[in-house]
Amino acid sequence: MANPTAAMLVIGDEILSGRTRDANMHYLAGELTKHGIDLKEVRIVSDDHPAIVTAVQALSKAYDTVFTSGGIGPTHDDITADCIAEAFGARIDVRDDAREILKAHYAKTGFDLNAARLRMARIPDGAALIDNPVSMAPGFTIGNVHVMAGVPQVFQAMVASVLPTLTGGAPLLSQTLRVFRGEGDIAETLAQLAEQYSDLSVGCYPFQKDGAFGANIVVRGSEGTRVDAAITQLSRDLKL
Amino acid sequence: MANPTAAMLVIGDEILSGRTRDANMHYLAGELTKHGIDLKEVRIVSDDHPAIVTAVQALSKAYDTVFTSGGIGPTHDDITADCIAEAFGARIDVRDDAREILKAHYAKTGFDLNAARLRMARIPDGAALIDNPVSMAPGFTIGNVHVMAGVPQVFQAMVASVLPTLTGGAPLLSQTLRVFRGEGDIAETLAQLAEQYSDLSVGCYPFQKDGAFGANIVVRGSEGTRVDAAITQLSRDLKL
Repeated sequence: MANPTAAMLVIGDEILSGRTRDANMHYLAGELTKHGIDLKEVRIVSDDHPAIVTAVQALSKAYDTVFTSGGIGPTHDDITADCIAEAFGARIDVRDDAREILKAHYAKTGFDLNAARLRMARIPDGAALIDNPVSMAPGFTIGNVHVMAGVPQVFQAMVASVLPTLTGGAPLLSQTLRVFRGEGDIAETLAQLAEQYSDLSVGCYPFQKDGAFGANIVVRGSEGTRVDAAITQLSRDLKL
Repeated sequence: MANPTAAMLVIGDEILSGRTRDANMHYLAGELTKHGIDLKEVRIVSDDHPAIVTAVQALSKAYDTVFTSGGIGPTHDDITADCIAEAFGARIDVRDDAREILKAHYAKTGFDLNAARLRMARIPDGAALIDNPVSMAPGFTIGNVHVMAGVPQVFQAMVASVLPTLTGGAPLLSQTLRVFRGEGDIAETLAQLAEQYSDLSVGCYPFQKDGAFGANIVVRGSEGTRVDAAITQLSRDLKL
């Protein structure tokens, strides 16, 4: 049976302008692979209301699960929660359960729960809160969309809260063979292998290093014995 | 006048599986910002024919320029050129000009220009070649889409070939103010600044470091004097 599918939506001008290098995508990709969920598409859009709404609706429709990162803080450029609410046609306002979490947190830390911070308690009707053990302001799940923070420590903590609630498939296993030959010399062998092992994915990633060149051949699949067999045969075919 | 817009399409299972961390997006984002072209959206899709065709068509229609990275090598998983041809309804085959480039290169290096390597000379009708000074196999431009390699050194060389041919707008200038205060304490001041300087973009990016927390406030715009004025006023408003 095919694994469940997922997409990710990264929201942030700072990434599209080149100021910040996104770290959340790579992290989520690794976690989903371990959990047996196939990440099929990632989109990065700017802090722009219609762009976010359109992307969320498209991804939510096309994939089993969607993860978003970014835009749920207290400042004026944090518009994700309102966009998600609109995408699902849900009402959004400060919600009591989220307000209580923030109230308790700020009482303890001595900060003021002002209007800006209260924005972080804006949660669409019908959404379930996602626990944030790092800085308390919750994410939320509505429909098949998990809305999470952009700060990597918080994003990772929220992924850890959400993943156990999702049904995964077989974890994707992979083995890599590193060969110091040109891609063009091994391409035919690889094409034959890919055809013979059509249940596996055979990828070839060239590199150039210190004047030498070669390729990492990666065989991926959910059955370890099949991946083993393909790699063994490949070593033999390439006379390694 | 608004700057030209751009989108990027990254093609590669290795990025979606978490095996490789994409470097090209961050590089392109920085180069486009310097050149006065606004990167508005990035999509990452797997080595899947319909997914690539659909994404290219959508981005080509929505933005002034599209850059793709990945999937133009000699192996069976390199399907980008054929997908782009399909997206534009163009015929694709080995083209003489591209074959000559490869022939000269492999004659010099002593490798065989076999069937696999010849795949890299498959160029859609009507496309213009993009120079590849690193490993010779060319990229190509068709319509408003620039098709480039995934290997970072080659990608960067191709960006350097393409960028001077594009009309840029005013480079996006930015200044950053680093403050050690909670986002929630400065949010109201920032919202007022963003409203007053509606021609600029005011972003707030929180961080936590060694127990202290704060935020980088980034003001972006194409007019240096306006960015200066906003940052000066912000320092005053925040009593820095």
